[in-house]
Amino acid sequence: MATVRLLSDEELSPEAQAVFADIRATRQSDFVNNFWRALAHDPATLKRTWESVKEVMGPGVLDPKVKEMIYIAVSVAHGCGYCIHSHTASARAKGMTDAEHRELLAIIGMASETNRLVTALGAPIDDVYDIG
Amino acid sequence: MATVRLLSDEELSPEAQAVFADIRATRQSDFVNNFWRALAHDPATLKRTWESVKEVMGPGVLDPKVKEMIYIAVSVAHGCGYCIHSHTASARAKGMTDAEHRELLAIIGMASETNRLVTALGAPIDDVYDIG
Amino acid sequence: MATVRLLSDEELSPEAQAVFADIRATRQSDFVNNFWRALAHDPATLKRTWESVKEVMGPGVLDPKVKEMIYIAVSVAHGCGYCIHSHTASARAKGMTDAEHRELLAIIGMASETNRLVTALGAPIDDVYDIG
Amino acid sequence: MATVRLLSDEELSPEAQAVFADIRATRQSDFVNNFWRALAHDPATLKRTWESVKEVMGPGVLDPKVKEMIYIAVSVAHGCGYCIHSHTASARAKGMTDAEHRELLAIIGMASETNRLVTALGAPIDDVYDIG
Amino acid sequence: MATVRLLSDEELSPEAQAVFADIRATRQSDFVNNFWRALAHDPATLKRTWESVKEVMGPGVLDPKVKEMIYIAVSVAHGCGYCIHSHTASARAKGMTDAEHRELLAIIGMASETNRLVTALGAPIDDVYDIG
Amino acid sequence: MATVRLLSDEELSPEAQAVFADIRATRQSDFVNNFWRALAHDPATLKRTWESVKEVMGPGVLDPKVKEMIYIAVSVAHGCGYCIHSHTASARAKGMTDAEHRELLAIIGMASETNRLVTALGAPIDDVYDIG
Repeated sequence: MATVRLLSDEELSPEAQAVFADIRATRQSDFVNNFWRALAHDPATLKRTWESVKEVMGPGVLDPKVKEMIYIAVSVAHGCGYCIHSHTASARAKGMTDAEHRELLAIIGMASETNRLVTALGAPIDDVYDIG
Repeated sequence: MATVRLLSDEELSPEAQAVFADIRATRQSDFVNNFWRALAHDPATLKRTWESVKEVMGPGVLDPKVKEMIYIAVSVAHGCGYCIHSHTASARAKGMTDAEHRELLAIIGMASETNRLVTALGAPIDDVYDIG
Repeated sequence: MATVRLLSDEELSPEAQAVFADIRATRQSDFVNNFWRALAHDPATLKRTWESVKEVMGPGVLDPKVKEMIYIAVSVAHGCGYCIHSHTASARAKGMTDAEHRELLAIIGMASETNRLVTALGAPIDDVYDIG
Repeated sequence: MATVRLLSDEELSPEAQAVFADIRATRQSDFVNNFWRALAHDPATLKRTWESVKEVMGPGVLDPKVKEMIYIAVSVAHGCGYCIHSHTASARAKGMTDAEHRELLAIIGMASETNRLVTALGAPIDDVYDIG
Repeated sequence: MATVRLLSDEELSPEAQAVFADIRATRQSDFVNNFWRALAHDPATLKRTWESVKEVMGPGVLDPKVKEMIYIAVSVAHGCGYCIHSHTASARAKGMTDAEHRELLAIIGMASETNRLVTALGAPIDDVYDIG
Repeated sequence: MATVRLLSDEELSPEAQAVFADIRATRQSDFVNNFWRALAHDPATLKRTWESVKEVMGPGVLDPKVKEMIYIAVSVAHGCGYCIHSHTASARAKGMTDAEHRELLAIIGMASETNRLVTALGAPIDDVYDIG
């Protein structure tokens, strides 16, 4: 199922072709996953999104695999099956071990439980936590 | 606002007192935050939750500060203001730098954007991501 | 904070006045809470929403207090602080005990944890669960 | 997968038949989609929901296609795949162009990103935004 | 699709075997569903989660079928298809009638609507609801 | 409450000053709201986010006020109080009438109800909705 057709390489506009070329060069792989093939109908959003992802997920102060694990955590909490599958693959490709994956999932589960408990209790934020 | 009263140390049941003592010993601090004071009405859930949090967030394969950052990511996606504030404080106490906090937030924002884009597009999960 | 002004009784349109009168008669109380005072700017939605709530939350096959507890569960998962506070009050007014409230919260927390774990794992739904 | 069986026309109760007849008359189409076939087990909720949808999504002050686009936005943020697919079809049937669909998705993605950023930062609502 | 392989009985570690044995004994059924087979890669989380679920969902002050209905409500609001299907089956096994299922769904839908309305209006929580 | 301090104009880095100047010029107003003052600790994310927002929310094929209404819809479904208040103000500034605001909220509420009903029912997506 999808709300737009996935575009093959042959159907891309020149602007989308340029983005796909950069995805391939950056990842050093010929494979371009379905998200980008669906987004390619909108070359402007494709380009802005890819460049933002490349900037945010590129070299920074955090370990690349940790960055992917944070991405997974957000994706699980948002219930995005596609994102969970693709970023779990990315995290593994960047070195996430099975033990790290297990620990990640345990934290996500635990956070979800306490998130909802504190929300149900309506506990006010302690003053010591305020930085603003 | 709260849906239960926050309990002072004097109002705790013996079972809750024991949990509070362990919280203080584990954290090496006398301060016990409002979440536990609200949860203390239910000593069984207080004990189970604290012990689970201690197990999950205790020593493992991931850096303690990274574990707190994953907790923040989940809490933001769930919109839990209390949890965001308390775990941002915990992450800083465990060494998260301002630069790491900034990178964390950029990833959370980026993941949220692509989570919703791919959901709106309904793109099917690529076969290569399937491990099951 | 609010995105519309709360309307006092004197400011209500005749249609909104009629709904407020029914809220008071149904609840056997003069108090009308802020949700309805904010919604009263839109008499059609006020009327439709109140009548739907009255129908759904009125006498049925489930205990009225159980119905409020289900309402709380949904409100917690949606992070609606207003709804959590108002329906916790309603549940108590309809007989929810402190022990039942504690059990409700433990279930909400537990469900949240397993919801996110199974989503992260991407486990396929077992065939035996399919009714469709 | 489904948690209830989808009902065929032959299996409908008289009350459900009447609602299906109104769905067909209103939409000027014989096709009745799976949501209503699943909901038809509960003729009271079927009737209330259909009549509410008809009232809310019927003629008003906003363009019918804009109303469907707002429906899509909510459905994406809630992660409801069924709703995204069905309302994307409805929006197109009511005139949403590909360019409008692309702009809709870009806005949904952008809003998701800033929603989570501001939540993570915990920025207090500026006084100028308060109407209440 | 899945992000980990489902484990067969033959592939379980001794610790996971012990948990599976307890699941079977507790449920008095040989069937172990996919959630546990996916979670079994992490025997510590498998054990902690199963024991927490057993404690929380075991005998308490609420009717077992009501507890499952609360679980369903949370799962729907979190959009967890797996959980909705498995806990709907559990609720039925514990006696939930079709009429109760219908009422549950009507409440979930209604709560979702008013949750979002009050959030959009930003109505402040009435002082009478404050217990804290 | 906040997890970072709000920065005054005097505390901005040169890069952040440039973004604030563009916010002021674009909006033709001296007022810069708290979101940007919190985000200004991270000039790179500030700049990328502002430029993306400006591109996405700038002139396109949809009415500027409709674009803000879509932003509100997403923000409500995500439970972001800050975003709801700020974008409701923006939508009004761009011409959203009270009648349009009322209709927007009715649609958001309705979509939330049917989103959760269909999710609870697990109804499969009808083949006619598939474009992929």
